[in-house]
Order: sequence, then C-alpha cells, then structure tokens
Amino acid sequence: MPKPTMQQTQLERILAIAAKLFAERGYHAVGMTELGDAVGLGRGALYHHIKSKEDVLYNITRQYIFVLVELGNKAFEEETDPKLRVQLLGRQLMETIAVYQAELTVCFREIYSLTGSRKEEVLKLHGEYEHIWRRALIDGEKKGVFRPFNAVRLKGLLGMFFYSYIWMKPNGAQGPETISKIFNDVVLKALEK
Amino acid sequence: MPKPTMQQTQLERILAIAAKLFAERGYHAVGMTELGDAVGLGRGALYHHIKSKEDVLYNITRQYIFVLVELGNKAFEEETDPKLRVQLLGRQLMETIAVYQAELTVCFREIYSLTGSRKEEVLKLHGEYEHIWRRALIDGEKKGVFRPFNAVRLKGLLGMFFYSYIWMKPNGAQGPETISKIFNDVVLKALEK
Repeated sequence: MPKPTMQQTQLERILAIAAKLFAERGYHAVGMTELGDAVGLGRGALYHHIKSKEDVLYNITRQYIFVLVELGNKAFEEETDPKLRVQLLGRQLMETIAVYQAELTVCFREIYSLTGSRKEEVLKLHGEYEHIWRRALIDGEKKGVFRPFNAVRLKGLLGMFFYSYIWMKPNGAQGPETISKIFNDVVLKALEK
Repeated sequence: MPKPTMQQTQLERILAIAAKLFAERGYHAVGMTELGDAVGLGRGALYHHIKSKEDVLYNITRQYIFVLVELGNKAFEEETDPKLRVQLLGRQLMETIAVYQAELTVCFREIYSLTGSRKEEVLKLHGEYEHIWRRALIDGEKKGVFRPFNAVRLKGLLGMFFYSYIWMKPNGAQGPETISKIFNDVVLKALEK
C-alpha cells in the first residue's frame, strides 16, 4: 500500500514534503518560506493550495487516521470471520503506519498545536477508528470466538501498533508485513477464550 | 509509588512544574521567565539550579527512564521466577508512567529538541531499559517457561505500556494497578510456550 505518487495531487505532494520536514526539524522550526522552497513553489502558488501553516498541520494529522477509518470500515464489512477480521485490521494498521510514519510522528508531537475544532476533529477520527476495533472484538465475543471485551486491553493492543511509528525503520529488515504478523499473533492470543 | 514531595529538592520541584507547563503548552511556547514565575523564583535563583531551558528539558526527559532502569535492574535481581519477574517489571513500568505522565509527554514530543550527546544519553537509557526486559524474556526462555525470544514482539509489548501516557487519565477510574494487571495478562499470554 504505497502512497499514490503518479496520481498525487499538488496538495498531496505539499503535505508529504511538509510532513517529512516537520518530522525532521519540528513544526515550529519550519517556516512557510522554507516549505515553499522545499516544494518548489512561490508564496502565491503555495497559498493557492493551503491557507496557513496550521492548515498544513491539520491536513497532515488528519490524513492517515482518515485513511484508517475508511479502510477499517471496509474491512469490517467485507471480512466477517472474527479472527480473520482482526488480522486484516492489524495488517492495514501496520501498513498505514509504515506509509505515513512522518505524518504519525508529526501528529503525536504536534496535535496540541491545533486550535479549536480542528483538534477535536482529529481526535474524533481516532475515536472512530478505535470503535471499529471495538465492534470487531464485541462481534467476536458474541460469536463465541473472543473472551469478554475489555476497553483497557483494546487500548493496549492498539498502542502496541501505534507506538511502532517511534521505532520502525523505514525500509528496515522488519517490514510492516513481518511486524503485523507478530503483532496479530499477540492480539489473537490476548483475545483467545 | 508517588513522587517524593516532602523531601523534594528545589531542583525536583522546578522540574515537576516545568514538565507540567511543557506538557500543557509546549516546550517552545514556555519561556524561562514564565517558568520562574510558576516556581516563584527570580532569574538569579532559577539559574542557580538550572543552566538553560534545554537543561530543564534534558533533566525532564532523563528522569523517568533513569528511574525505570534503576527499578528494573533491582527487580531483575530480586525476582528470579520468569513470570513473576515480568509481572513485577510491568507493574513498575505502569506505575512510573502514571507518576511521570507529564514527563513522558514532554519526552516523546520534544526529545528531538535535545542537542548533541544529551539526546544520545536519553536514548541510551531507553535501550538499557529495553535490555532488562530482553534479559528477562531470554532467561525465561532458557528456563523453559517462555517461547523463543522475538525482538519485535518485545517492542510491541513495551509499546503497549509506553503508549498509555497518551490515553491514561490521571486519577481515572482505571489506575495503574488495574491497567498493569490487564497488560501483564497480555504479556504472559504472548510469551506462553
């Protein structure tokens, strides 16, 4: 699941470059002029695509979790076997973290820099994503496959995945496929009746 | 395991207040004057205890992981039963995260703001702490209690704990004791032969 590159819009290209810059040097340290230079656009052209630096931050932090909610809802509908469903969710999650590692880094560091309803919106999407897993676990419990649902256990299992943005090496020996296999094994053991 | 308060040194008091301020408003947004006001010390008195703002950040990010390494090494020596040992490590970890939640928040957000050898020093301590768990898991494997060691699985299990700084509510219904019981159960199931 690579990021679209050929069909990438100008906005997507700006966001991807900004995410890398913010992840490397910090959101507050990177100015709009520097971002313009990095994407090869003058001030006017840059502001044609984005309204402000916070607008860039909002789009970066929103993007990967929006993708996860879309993929997760689809996975929930398409795979109804409880064990296969959580494995599919785990694979999607790990692959998305690998593709959007810079975006996750920026999100976890800088979400508090978002103002007003934008922060609420990003947190709401995180809540929606967690809710998909919650439904998957409760459905598995109803079907007699998983043990009774526990909200803290789910927080822990999702934390295991999300925390990997910190230690995962891009193009490392352990790719997202290998990692998600190991993590899915932990998830299934933890949920076993 | 509360933070020492009665016997807290002036430096510990400054660091605890700074950690809360940085966690709430961001490291870059808080100036030394504001920190001085918050701790009730003038510039001269404040600089008697700390050399610079980065000095404060370094001490904040170093503190909890230093505590974890100390506690963890002691736990490793004192508890030799593999299952009881990882349960003890898990309890210590969760309690330390609960006590130093502001410090973890600052560390995970701002470690990249540390310059030179200071960042290396904090990362080295994180490596040392992971190594204690690694030894505990490998010892358990040798004693025939745990399955073969897997480094990615350990990263995941530690991530489950560390990530809780994001969602754990201070004084929430689910305290560190309850949370570590649930997480230790996941750990033992994941390590079972």
